[in-house]
Amino acid sequence: MAKTSDQTKEACVYEQWMNLQQQELSELNQAIALNANGCTTNTELSQLIDKILSHFQDYTQKRTLMAQIDISPYFAPTWCTSLERSVLWIGGCRPSSYVRLIYALCGEEIESHLSEFLRGVRIGNLGEISGTQISMVDELQRKTIKEERKLSERIASLQEDVLDHPLASIAVKSSGGGGSTVEEALDEHGRAMAEILKEADELRMDTLREIIRILTPQQAVDFLAAGKKLRLCMQDWGKKRDLDHGRN
Amino acid sequence: MAKTSDQTKEACVYEQWMNLQQQELSELNQAIALNANGCTTNTELSQLIDKILSHFQDYTQKRTLMAQIDISPYFAPTWCTSLERSVLWIGGCRPSSYVRLIYALCGEEIESHLSEFLRGVRIGNLGEISGTQISMVDELQRKTIKEERKLSERIASLQEDVLDHPLASIAVKSSGGGGSTVEEALDEHGRAMAEILKEADELRMDTLREIIRILTPQQAVDFLAAGKKLRLCMQDWGKKRDLDHGRN
Repeated sequence: MAKTSDQTKEACVYEQWMNLQQQELSELNQAIALNANGCTTNTELSQLIDKILSHFQDYTQKRTLMAQIDISPYFAPTWCTSLERSVLWIGGCRPSSYVRLIYALCGEEIESHLSEFLRGVRIGNLGEISGTQISMVDELQRKTIKEERKLSERIASLQEDVLDHPLASIAVKSSGGGGSTVEEALDEHGRAMAEILKEADELRMDTLREIIRILTPQQAVDFLAAGKKLRLCMQDWGKKRDLDHGRN
Repeated sequence: MAKTSDQTKEACVYEQWMNLQQQELSELNQAIALNANGCTTNTELSQLIDKILSHFQDYTQKRTLMAQIDISPYFAPTWCTSLERSVLWIGGCRPSSYVRLIYALCGEEIESHLSEFLRGVRIGNLGEISGTQISMVDELQRKTIKEERKLSERIASLQEDVLDHPLASIAVKSSGGGGSTVEEALDEHGRAMAEILKEADELRMDTLREIIRILTPQQAVDFLAAGKKLRLCMQDWGKKRDLDHGRN
């Protein structure tokens, strides 16, 4: 009976997380406004940033525990819109996309589709990013993409392996074997997938921490606010498109 | 109004497809039984194989047309079980998995988890695969994996690009721009994703055709029957696991 509530629990944790994103965006915007008027200190900004990182850490830890019980929904969650699912990488965004956001925001990415749109748009304190910071960001991006590729390859070979397992079971079945072998093989596959989700979450967390370390507190709040705005917009656009196509 | 039935149509086409798989498996099993008694000719087996390939071609063509209207559900279809979604590669199975199935069936894959299960199990005419055929299969597998990797990389860079587009729109919005830019950017992204789905389907189809060309008609019906059995089992196991975890 305990198992029947798995999906509800997973969807519920996600909904709470998205609500928290909305709330954190408000707090960030408030802090940015106060800071523009000289009404906040760097210490106060840093406290807000730490709180946000710690929320993210809590969320991924909760998710890791739930995924160990049942991994399959995380690779294509029904609680996301189709648009969000179509850009999903191992249960979330690509860690390298955090860094791409910095490039986009500080207009450094020459080939970006953004350049024409960004002209004349206020990009806050990220406009004042230094050469040293950009070098550190570049180095972080190289490292992140390398780690991302390793995880992508591990997922690919796990997907290939699963064919072996169930096939094995068919073979056993054909000669009169039982269904418990299927369950065991799929459980083992699930555990390996859950481990990769955990590592992907760790890479997301580590990348975020590194970015925060490179940026000043003022830049970091601008960055976090833009990231959360983008995340919430993706959900809104996805909902709109699902409605347009008769999905709910 | 036309758009509101998109999801129902997509799910319906898929359901018909899975029912056809069941029907084709019966026809294949019947042909295999008749052939064992010497009651079918190679020409009759070839006709059945051609019919099955042509069904697959029809299905992918229908899918390509529907995906051009709305691509997003194909990368994580709600009409599949969580288990099936977790092993999905660009809207279907990895083309290389067809070849892996041959290796598994003819016991050639030394490192396979299958070896212990396959011992003593009837593997039909694929047990009599020749050295020349295995070389051709190996060559096909190398080619297929290379093409698969190219498509995987294109998907990865498209996923990275989408961040640019919506972000662009946010920037525009922030300075008073409109929502139509978001729609255009996402539509363009959707078209690129639909094109990749089409190419992935073509690669699946080409790989299957090559395999049929390499195998004798008797081997080909054994291969197709095993593939369809595996596909249908994946759906059954997925349904069972979804029920166990309170999903429906």
